[in-house]
Amino acid sequence: MLVVMQNHASPEQIDEVLRAIRELNLTPHPLPGATRTAIGITGNTSAIDSRSLEVLSGVSECIRVTKPFKLASREMHAADTVVTLPQTSIGPGTLTMIAGPCSVETEELMLRTAEFMMANGVKLMRAGAFKPRTSPYSYQGAGLEGLKILERARAKTGIGIVTELMDTDNADAVEAASDIIQIGTRNMQNFSLLKRVGKMKKPVLLKRGMSATLEEWLMAAEYVMAGGNYNVILCERGIRSFSDHSRNTLDLSVIPPAKKLSHLPIMVDPSHGVGKREFVPAMALASLAAGADGLLIEVHPDPDHAASDGAQTLSFEGFKKLLESLKRLAEPLGRRLN
Amino acid sequence: MLVVMQNHASPEQIDEVLRAIRELNLTPHPLPGATRTAIGITGNTSAIDSRSLEVLSGVSECIRVTKPFKLASREMHAADTVVTLPQTSIGPGTLTMIAGPCSVETEELMLRTAEFMMANGVKLMRAGAFKPRTSPYSYQGAGLEGLKILERARAKTGIGIVTELMDTDNADAVEAASDIIQIGTRNMQNFSLLKRVGKMKKPVLLKRGMSATLEEWLMAAEYVMAGGNYNVILCERGIRSFSDHSRNTLDLSVIPPAKKLSHLPIMVDPSHGVGKREFVPAMALASLAAGADGLLIEVHPDPDHAASDGAQTLSFEGFKKLLESLKRLAEPLGRRLN
Amino acid sequence: MLVVMQNHASPEQIDEVLRAIRELNLTPHPLPGATRTAIGITGNTSAIDSRSLEVLSGVSECIRVTKPFKLASREMHAADTVVTLPQTSIGPGTLTMIAGPCSVETEELMLRTAEFMMANGVKLMRAGAFKPRTSPYSYQGAGLEGLKILERARAKTGIGIVTELMDTDNADAVEAASDIIQIGTRNMQNFSLLKRVGKMKKPVLLKRGMSATLEEWLMAAEYVMAGGNYNVILCERGIRSFSDHSRNTLDLSVIPPAKKLSHLPIMVDPSHGVGKREFVPAMALASLAAGADGLLIEVHPDPDHAASDGAQTLSFEGFKKLLESLKRLAEPLGRRLN
Amino acid sequence: MLVVMQNHASPEQIDEVLRAIRELNLTPHPLPGATRTAIGITGNTSAIDSRSLEVLSGVSECIRVTKPFKLASREMHAADTVVTLPQTSIGPGTLTMIAGPCSVETEELMLRTAEFMMANGVKLMRAGAFKPRTSPYSYQGAGLEGLKILERARAKTGIGIVTELMDTDNADAVEAASDIIQIGTRNMQNFSLLKRVGKMKKPVLLKRGMSATLEEWLMAAEYVMAGGNYNVILCERGIRSFSDHSRNTLDLSVIPPAKKLSHLPIMVDPSHGVGKREFVPAMALASLAAGADGLLIEVHPDPDHAASDGAQTLSFEGFKKLLESLKRLAEPLGRRLN
Repeated sequence: MLVVMQNHASPEQIDEVLRAIRELNLTPHPLPGATRTAIGITGNTSAIDSRSLEVLSGVSECIRVTKPFKLASREMHAADTVVTLPQTSIGPGTLTMIAGPCSVETEELMLRTAEFMMANGVKLMRAGAFKPRTSPYSYQGAGLEGLKILERARAKTGIGIVTELMDTDNADAVEAASDIIQIGTRNMQNFSLLKRVGKMKKPVLLKRGMSATLEEWLMAAEYVMAGGNYNVILCERGIRSFSDHSRNTLDLSVIPPAKKLSHLPIMVDPSHGVGKREFVPAMALASLAAGADGLLIEVHPDPDHAASDGAQTLSFEGFKKLLESLKRLAEPLGRRLN
Repeated sequence: MLVVMQNHASPEQIDEVLRAIRELNLTPHPLPGATRTAIGITGNTSAIDSRSLEVLSGVSECIRVTKPFKLASREMHAADTVVTLPQTSIGPGTLTMIAGPCSVETEELMLRTAEFMMANGVKLMRAGAFKPRTSPYSYQGAGLEGLKILERARAKTGIGIVTELMDTDNADAVEAASDIIQIGTRNMQNFSLLKRVGKMKKPVLLKRGMSATLEEWLMAAEYVMAGGNYNVILCERGIRSFSDHSRNTLDLSVIPPAKKLSHLPIMVDPSHGVGKREFVPAMALASLAAGADGLLIEVHPDPDHAASDGAQTLSFEGFKKLLESLKRLAEPLGRRLN
Repeated sequence: MLVVMQNHASPEQIDEVLRAIRELNLTPHPLPGATRTAIGITGNTSAIDSRSLEVLSGVSECIRVTKPFKLASREMHAADTVVTLPQTSIGPGTLTMIAGPCSVETEELMLRTAEFMMANGVKLMRAGAFKPRTSPYSYQGAGLEGLKILERARAKTGIGIVTELMDTDNADAVEAASDIIQIGTRNMQNFSLLKRVGKMKKPVLLKRGMSATLEEWLMAAEYVMAGGNYNVILCERGIRSFSDHSRNTLDLSVIPPAKKLSHLPIMVDPSHGVGKREFVPAMALASLAAGADGLLIEVHPDPDHAASDGAQTLSFEGFKKLLESLKRLAEPLGRRLN
Repeated sequence: MLVVMQNHASPEQIDEVLRAIRELNLTPHPLPGATRTAIGITGNTSAIDSRSLEVLSGVSECIRVTKPFKLASREMHAADTVVTLPQTSIGPGTLTMIAGPCSVETEELMLRTAEFMMANGVKLMRAGAFKPRTSPYSYQGAGLEGLKILERARAKTGIGIVTELMDTDNADAVEAASDIIQIGTRNMQNFSLLKRVGKMKKPVLLKRGMSATLEEWLMAAEYVMAGGNYNVILCERGIRSFSDHSRNTLDLSVIPPAKKLSHLPIMVDPSHGVGKREFVPAMALASLAAGADGLLIEVHPDPDHAASDGAQTLSFEGFKKLLESLKRLAEPLGRRLN
């Protein structure tokens, strides 16, 4: 950390800051400059609130230079993490598809979707049994019965299941039913939930919070990893900005810096990002080109009658067409569809 | 809801939309215009995803004209809600202060703070036993032991307790220890938690999510109210924007429209909004002038050594000075400090 | 336009709104609903400030349903606009490259760059003679002398020139020196400047304002087109959000809706979008996959010693590598590098 | 400036950075730490693009510690700037009102407004002769004839005139007609225009850009001051965020840090900030309480028929009522209406 003094700070004020730093069991390194003094700090500064030094007299500002995440950091773990599943694996050189309806619907429909996916080489199916809905009056999902449907679809077809966990109450049931546990954007900083999935054995798909910086996102991953679960998959799904032409602002530019700072795989959910099915294929292709390790795509045999989010959901034919475009694009990028 | 057709939409496309609306058990009202047709929809449209009509051929866009919140809406309940507590009440004509340290600290310190508050006419004390921290390596709060400390401080001084609930696991303990249950900004759309506090008897202080629109915030209040708990207090605490001179962007301009759309009281937390103690008093005064029904202020006998958020925390003297300024300002505004 | 009445609006209030609409020479269409009345408006509403009806008693809100742009709208002009230049053309089926240093530097360097570009099939060179710099103490560009250098580079190599116009004072000189006139992000709503370039014969590359919605951007294009210059090329270069991992938030998701709403070609400037050279290639590939008609890339023979923006500038070798990647990616997308 | 090396940077990489810093005629100060080395830089770093060092091998990031503004900085000029006008002065201890219609309308109306203002102690009238409108089809203002009307109103009543300059073409005419020259939000980084008003003798009211940070705003002021015009008045008018309950997000929290970093006076324009007249008074009072030195308020004798922005414009009676509220509030704040 670096403390920058005001340009008219007195020697006494500087001494006071040096004393305060030593009180925190850290080592100060004064660095006099042409117009002001800066004080470098060495030692373990990760637990310090930099603003506690900023309130000292004569201090202009404090600047943190060490990243606060460790386990999620590429500096600590240079090699890309590969998340290995019974059905496939997620990581470099590949593009893993996760597709399916927004919500779990009838068993017949889920089975039909699972069979369609497996027949097209897609080994992971997404569908929410518990749905975070903005309105208490909207459909809240099929609940535990929905999980049973997913388990039966998996048993019959062998497809892997990706489904959202919204609270600790249903943690065991969701873990049992899923191959990957999804944490939704609104729960990215639900720290009790992050601690709970940190104790699980199943991989966690961690969606980026709507207003989370990359650092906060990696700190949320750190919560899961600090609990002992190292299989975290990041998932960009659009951030909130002033821009109103799409449901959210899909931030594909986060992919290269996320890969630089962290070894974790990163996927993209263009369906939630753009919110309209006609714009999904273009952003899916762009995600692949930007370096995403996988895609979450909402697909339904009859999107116009889907239980939720039909407007951003592709039909089977639409999805097949997208799969073909992705395969064609993957090749010159040296990637392979999983 | 209103469906706007494209300007070259065919009569067949319009008929198809009319049919789709009737299938939803709603009544369409075609409205031909100079360049295009619009179709008004009457009936209960609150549970419909407007995008499901937007994907029909020939449709340009769908526009929702009815607000989706009911219980939180002033249209349904014209009179201002007054939240009545054993110690005081929150609502029009008054300014209710809630003050105290960020985290529960030692019993001695909490007692000293409670006595100071009561001696200065402040009847509600805030302090977190469970702390939502960005880093898993930061202090996570005193937990259940912290709740005990708060209960003893209340028993000895009579002060009301405002403390945060982070998860359903600790719901009973937090409800027992508190007079107002705080839901933090990161949990504003933790719907499982909102449903849980909807079942409680204690009032809920609902902080605005960092990237929540006013409508989403009122929908979160609606979740609590739909469960039967009508005592919801809104609390603005800063939103996320590009602006970097303050910790968050305190959105005081939300107060007048919130009061227009809803009958719920609204408070402001300038400490989290600005993030630096020197800027807190100005924004506290501005909140009062903008029409806030109350203020949450972080106060500590020795802010430089507070367990968390010391940089945005006022000292006892600083807070006393602020109280006096607020009292002087309240008078010409026809308001009274509670 | 649609006026939505409050649910308790009186018949007198509704009559008053009908009268106000007729006063504006428009036709009102009352649409009574279950809980409230809405009033559709037909006629030319494009010049009306919807808020002028919102202040009437009993009105809840006004909703605009017609887009305010005409000449830029695909509804008015279904076919894609192709911008034809002496050197190449910009439009569907192709990917047009514009590359070069941020600022005009020495004649030797500009000539060397132009020759390198032409040798690699890139027929348009970018370089700013007038530089919009945040600080008055930063290098402000080579000015008129820089334009002369560009003209000589064009004369010798045949390359087309893309350079920024910052004010009406230099309009004639910039028009003479350039094949495409660039309007920078900070001037997207400099309406005097837009009107001036609307009178020019040269195509205009209109960068999106840092905080411009798609509609505002198309309205800025409309200013240019209303002056008689229909050759407008949109250019996305990153918007401002809370996100801090990149210089700006490159909004690739604007491409599909821009193409839906407008017939104008759209390019992307990933160099300014991400601000760091190592992240430029990934976002250039993603732009192509998302449907961009072209790319602006900052390239310099010695980026570490560029006069400005070296950090986001590719070297010749880096650019050649990117060109190859783009070519490989263009093929499966049915596109061709221009 | 501070260069932070990666934690595995080699001694050779560090040497290379030291050499690059010395090449820039600056002095490096290596600061070895527990996990990585940081390098402090002293000398005049204000003209350096920090990213040029970030691209060197082994560098993690560069952090700027000196503010880039000088003349606008309170460190250079401790005392508050007071802007002195023939009619009044703007600065500490007072609240200066600037009020009037959005656009210049008929001479009769402007004269009537000026007389009303003077009769109520308001000595500065605002009205735009040149209007920056989003649509080319909207009313663009009365132009030079509008300036004449303003000059005659001033001559007859003695009121001071505040009017917007949109381009250098009309610079002389606007300067002649006005007592304060307004630079609008869309032109905050129109550097050619800033340089032009830097040469003028009249004070400049510099509105904050919709997406400008405080630092960028002060750098825009620095452009004006670097030209020799030190009478700059900052004016907050709302920033762009995701929030949609108001026209813009009025950022009152910028006032205290602006006053800390700069000696320039700061005003607030709540009319443009909130965009609806019913919300203007609350935010005007809040601006005063937050420490604003003045207010810009849109006022019109018949707002429902104003030429532009009537929806956010107060009537004469509404404004008189607001003035009285402001006076009552100013007293306990130790302030006086100007």
